[in-house]
Amino acid sequence: MSFEIPSDVQLDPAFCASLDEQDPLASLRHEFMLPDGVIYLDGMSLGALPKKTSQCVSDVVNEQWGQGLIRSWNSAGWMEAPQRIGGKIARLINAHSDEVVIADSTSVNLFKLLVGALDLKPERRTVLIESTNFPTDIYIAKGVSQLLPGIDVRVISVDQLSESLDDSVAVVMMTHVDYKSSQLQDMEGITRLVHNAGALMLWDLSHSTGAVPLDLARSRVDFAVGCGYKYLNGGPGAPAFVFVALRHLQNFKQPITAWMGHARPFDFTIDYEPSPNISRMLSGTPMILSLAALEVGVDLWAKIDPTLARAKSVALSKLFLSILERTLDTGCLKVASPRDPSQRGGHIAIRHEQGYAVMQAMIDRGVIGDFREPDLMRFGFAPLYLRFIDIWNAAQILTKVIQTNAWDSPEYRERAAVT
Amino acid sequence: MSFEIPSDVQLDPAFCASLDEQDPLASLRHEFMLPDGVIYLDGMSLGALPKKTSQCVSDVVNEQWGQGLIRSWNSAGWMEAPQRIGGKIARLINAHSDEVVIADSTSVNLFKLLVGALDLKPERRTVLIESTNFPTDIYIAKGVSQLLPGIDVRVISVDQLSESLDDSVAVVMMTHVDYKSSQLQDMEGITRLVHNAGALMLWDLSHSTGAVPLDLARSRVDFAVGCGYKYLNGGPGAPAFVFVALRHLQNFKQPITAWMGHARPFDFTIDYEPSPNISRMLSGTPMILSLAALEVGVDLWAKIDPTLARAKSVALSKLFLSILERTLDTGCLKVASPRDPSQRGGHIAIRHEQGYAVMQAMIDRGVIGDFREPDLMRFGFAPLYLRFIDIWNAAQILTKVIQTNAWDSPEYRERAAVT
Repeated sequence: MSFEIPSDVQLDPAFCASLDEQDPLASLRHEFMLPDGVIYLDGMSLGALPKKTSQCVSDVVNEQWGQGLIRSWNSAGWMEAPQRIGGKIARLINAHSDEVVIADSTSVNLFKLLVGALDLKPERRTVLIESTNFPTDIYIAKGVSQLLPGIDVRVISVDQLSESLDDSVAVVMMTHVDYKSSQLQDMEGITRLVHNAGALMLWDLSHSTGAVPLDLARSRVDFAVGCGYKYLNGGPGAPAFVFVALRHLQNFKQPITAWMGHARPFDFTIDYEPSPNISRMLSGTPMILSLAALEVGVDLWAKIDPTLARAKSVALSKLFLSILERTLDTGCLKVASPRDPSQRGGHIAIRHEQGYAVMQAMIDRGVIGDFREPDLMRFGFAPLYLRFIDIWNAAQILTKVIQTNAWDSPEYRERAAVT
Repeated sequence: MSFEIPSDVQLDPAFCASLDEQDPLASLRHEFMLPDGVIYLDGMSLGALPKKTSQCVSDVVNEQWGQGLIRSWNSAGWMEAPQRIGGKIARLINAHSDEVVIADSTSVNLFKLLVGALDLKPERRTVLIESTNFPTDIYIAKGVSQLLPGIDVRVISVDQLSESLDDSVAVVMMTHVDYKSSQLQDMEGITRLVHNAGALMLWDLSHSTGAVPLDLARSRVDFAVGCGYKYLNGGPGAPAFVFVALRHLQNFKQPITAWMGHARPFDFTIDYEPSPNISRMLSGTPMILSLAALEVGVDLWAKIDPTLARAKSVALSKLFLSILERTLDTGCLKVASPRDPSQRGGHIAIRHEQGYAVMQAMIDRGVIGDFREPDLMRFGFAPLYLRFIDIWNAAQILTKVIQTNAWDSPEYRERAAVT
């Protein structure tokens, strides 16, 4: 099938329904628990709840913890959960199973990776970081530069990357899909550029994993982090994953050396010996309840072709923009994401000078996206649980909110922003 | 009431039942889901499941996540969960509510605290750490010394503390209750000694919180970490808590600077400005499912007098030892914990040269404790869900396993140790 929208087609509910009928991923929607009366376009902030998660987490609580108690560390596979789930994500991003493990948050993993990467390039002391990175990435880099002597962090635009790659650069940190604009970077090309300059490349895949097909092996990525609670549908604050290329693993020293990263944690020796495999990226005891929910979300991806999921997501976003262009005088709206779908990730950002109020009005009318300062509304097109008819309805509601100035109310202007 | 055991009393099931009848905490057992046929003496590794946890976690999954989706960060109080639960723990350990927050694992928090503490004492570069600390504490300290130039980590015994406190010492790290021997340290006296030498004190309260009454204000503790999954019954791998004394907070710089520690996370500014309060100890997005379970366990403590809980725990442990002494030729068993209950925490360690096999035989017979190399069996006396009759039965089973050499089977010798 093709998700293409012919330029001369009548955009209406019937056309959207026909796209849903042809959608080979349509049945996946039944794997999710979605609230009635809600069109959820915020999967890039918090993915929806897979139906199986409830029973799985309940089993972990009642059976594994309640009945199995301490025995479940072995009998229920808790000890291996970080590596087991990491291996499943590895298949999704084309990495080796011993290159990915679940640990901590993306922030903590960025810290571990950056410190460890700098240790591999002791003769180089500069970190380049792209200015549109999610702020936590920049905060982590600046924190590391305050902690370690001689480290210089330079915040640059992507256009400045090539000219900035001098022989002092140890590590380049970039976000693959921009959390605001959705700009998608050329992972393979940029990694090659960085390697040619003798530096190491650290990618933040938070907005990419589950949104766009990833091939970390082909792109020769050195290090990466990714988020569990967006397109992987792992639940609020789900633990993150961390990737270290096999070629670096044996020499990679992460700084938060703790028992779960030890070669033999239960020997309780006084000397730290890092695990020979990806487990060396672990620090403390893994949070089993959160890991259990993440595993359900990751398991859903096992049977999905990421290329097909991406094609559907692109079609959803193109449909949304096409409807808006035809139904709305879009003078007050400005698309802040690349118009070329191959240049963007899984969401679209649209500017409106009262974007916060517009989004609040939409949420009140059952369409949930989110807002980022100063004027960006974000709409996410998660392909596993959205229908084309949802996009039709969401676009109608946005059109109506704009046309009737429904957003222009003190109530909508005053509420507080959330993640 | 008194939990005292008169020396001339007949120790038998009837006497134990009479202690249970007088126990003012007896009804708390009904707050827990305990498996049939199991006597659980491993609460110092993983606390039992509170009955309310199942429903609470289910609500968080199905209602808050499933129905509320992204809105629950505000509407369900997810954003404030680390501070809210921290405040509840603060009351339990007599700290200010702005001194405690839930974050990451104990290991990651130890790293943050040690690095931040060293920053407060730039003219001193030595870390003293007690040799019987849980290994992760020692690994973290050694990791920090490899990361930061000029930091010297000296592993000492507690007897050497006084003589080791020269004017190079910046920080002393100690565990309040030893994970093996259960030795309880004098928090107030040692902290005073360390302060008198001009150094800062970092306590690991993993085996103390919920086991012994704590008064961090009175003891003038500078920094502390504690564990959520032991006596707080927060579930497997529950997140940890971190304590920073108010007097240090404003100048305290933790190294993993990320968005949740920012003064205004949702401004998404490029510059990091630490939160003015304890939130500055946060790094990444909190793991909500694991926090939800922890909160139920912590809430149970709100109505419990820690002094009374401690008195019951001591009585349980004394009863256990008294029964063993009377029923068993204890030549093959050696108590490795202080005999004076005021010198030990919530568990007792007993040596047997085949301790691993003995513990496996006991587990097969429904008594769950655990084992630590090389020969230590650990028995925990969690006062919230254990009965005196359980102690009678556990002691009988241990006696029988020893008297009949039931442990002497290849099956018991071969199984793998767990956390």
